[in-house]
Amino acid sequence: MPSRGPDRSAPLGRAIHDRIEALRRLVDEALERELPPETAWPETIHRAVRYSLFAGGKRLRPVLALASGEAVGGDREELMPFACAVEMIHTYSLIHDDLPAMDDDDLRRGKPTSHKVFGEANAILAGDALLTRAFHVLAQVPEAYDGERLRRRFQATALLAEASGSQGLIGGQVVDLESAGREVEEAELERMHRAKTGALIGACVQGGAILGGAGAEPLRHLSRYGRAIGLAFQIVDDVLDATETAESLGKTPGKDLSAGKATYVRLFGLARSRALAQELLAEALAALEPLGEHGELLAGLARLVVERNG
Amino acid sequence: MPSRGPDRSAPLGRAIHDRIEALRRLVDEALERELPPETAWPETIHRAVRYSLFAGGKRLRPVLALASGEAVGGDREELMPFACAVEMIHTYSLIHDDLPAMDDDDLRRGKPTSHKVFGEANAILAGDALLTRAFHVLAQVPEAYDGERLRRRFQATALLAEASGSQGLIGGQVVDLESAGREVEEAELERMHRAKTGALIGACVQGGAILGGAGAEPLRHLSRYGRAIGLAFQIVDDVLDATETAESLGKTPGKDLSAGKATYVRLFGLARSRALAQELLAEALAALEPLGEHGELLAGLARLVVERNG
Repeated sequence: MPSRGPDRSAPLGRAIHDRIEALRRLVDEALERELPPETAWPETIHRAVRYSLFAGGKRLRPVLALASGEAVGGDREELMPFACAVEMIHTYSLIHDDLPAMDDDDLRRGKPTSHKVFGEANAILAGDALLTRAFHVLAQVPEAYDGERLRRRFQATALLAEASGSQGLIGGQVVDLESAGREVEEAELERMHRAKTGALIGACVQGGAILGGAGAEPLRHLSRYGRAIGLAFQIVDDVLDATETAESLGKTPGKDLSAGKATYVRLFGLARSRALAQELLAEALAALEPLGEHGELLAGLARLVVERNG
Repeated sequence: MPSRGPDRSAPLGRAIHDRIEALRRLVDEALERELPPETAWPETIHRAVRYSLFAGGKRLRPVLALASGEAVGGDREELMPFACAVEMIHTYSLIHDDLPAMDDDDLRRGKPTSHKVFGEANAILAGDALLTRAFHVLAQVPEAYDGERLRRRFQATALLAEASGSQGLIGGQVVDLESAGREVEEAELERMHRAKTGALIGACVQGGAILGGAGAEPLRHLSRYGRAIGLAFQIVDDVLDATETAESLGKTPGKDLSAGKATYVRLFGLARSRALAQELLAEALAALEPLGEHGELLAGLARLVVERNG
């Protein structure tokens, strides 16, 4: 057993690693239940949806949602539909971002991208189906839920929709595409990264906390944590795009740089980008302090975000 | 004033026409409120979203939702977010269906399609944004709502998500694309049409009724009505595609036939297709009988669906 206090300097402990793995497996099982089978009519779309959703994603976002909700005493069954919805939205965004009209990527998670396997039309529709399914999952509420639980579900759903919408994930992608070959200043770059990646990661943490019944104070701390790791995630992505191989990333590296996209590495160089990510990690860990040992798993996840290599 | 009883053989009366127009205007005003302004960051996506949403659509689906809910005594304010969501989903589906990778259409509602104006990437993202916004609108519930109203909102949202999903609208589009150049039998064609068009129209009527607080009996009648006009709508679309000009349709006619798509006209010819649509109109009107004068507006809308020329 690890020490009970959150030892923030240690490498990811075995116990934390095992807890993350256990949550990942639960998310995979829940996702399996939340989708129509591959044989459902029409088969093409269900094969395409499952191909991308079960392509070996790390399930970081749903695990963050579960960990955040459980850190404030939430009920796993109440959190799981939200966790599934978050992963569906993340996966849809990858399918659409990879399309020829967007980032034109052939490789994702070490496999050919959706449009390479199923064609462009089906890839667009598979993304649409995952986005729609995410909200379908959230809209199916148990008979036994009282008004308070129903209201919490709506709040988390609204947060998720906002983070995924035209001023969040979608808006970030629009600006990302427009940034190609253009000089972008720090404030604009941060805004773009926060929208493209940070908003959804932040919504995972915040939505999980709301579903977990967090009071105002813990919610504030968790929101600060989510905001910090959300931006850190994208900065690390920029670093990995510039330094890693296709094998470790499971996607084509160097694409952002060669496309002249605005990235932290382009603006600040590698060393400063890495330092910024470490600063955000410290900020995230500081935000968890008031949660004591309840913040342990989230602290481990923050380190995973910043110290990953793929 | 028209006679109070539903005179089902008369042409669309002036009073019914005026009621439909009034609802259309209210829907337009509500849609205006439910979207970020065109100047919101990032502007491109908000311009693209508004370009398609305010391109002169007939607002049939939201008006159906309002009429259905009001037919059972529902509250217009409770119905309006659902009506807006339905129109946003309909508009997103048109933007994506028109993409080069799908039906490759240059013209919609008499204007250049979204990808012609904003490029493919932004058109895909504008569709994504509208789909996401639809569920965002539904997830924002008034503070004052009690458990029953919250539950109704979830039920209508789930219905809408199902109708729009991989076994509804999206599934129908998948099969429609796969039908090009292939022989399709009546049962498969009907299933495809019901998924592609019927499901969403049915969900408008059923969701409106649920939000209006319909009891089991009226809900059954209205569901039957929605099912009939949903299929009728797509059959009439097939007829118009084969007979009308680009000017009256506002989109390129003859595309389904020239692409070898499965349509009622291709399978049954024009006369039999028109007769089928009339049979479905009679079925829809019969379903409204038990509602008496409360069904008047819905009867008018059914006639509008079958007797439109664009």
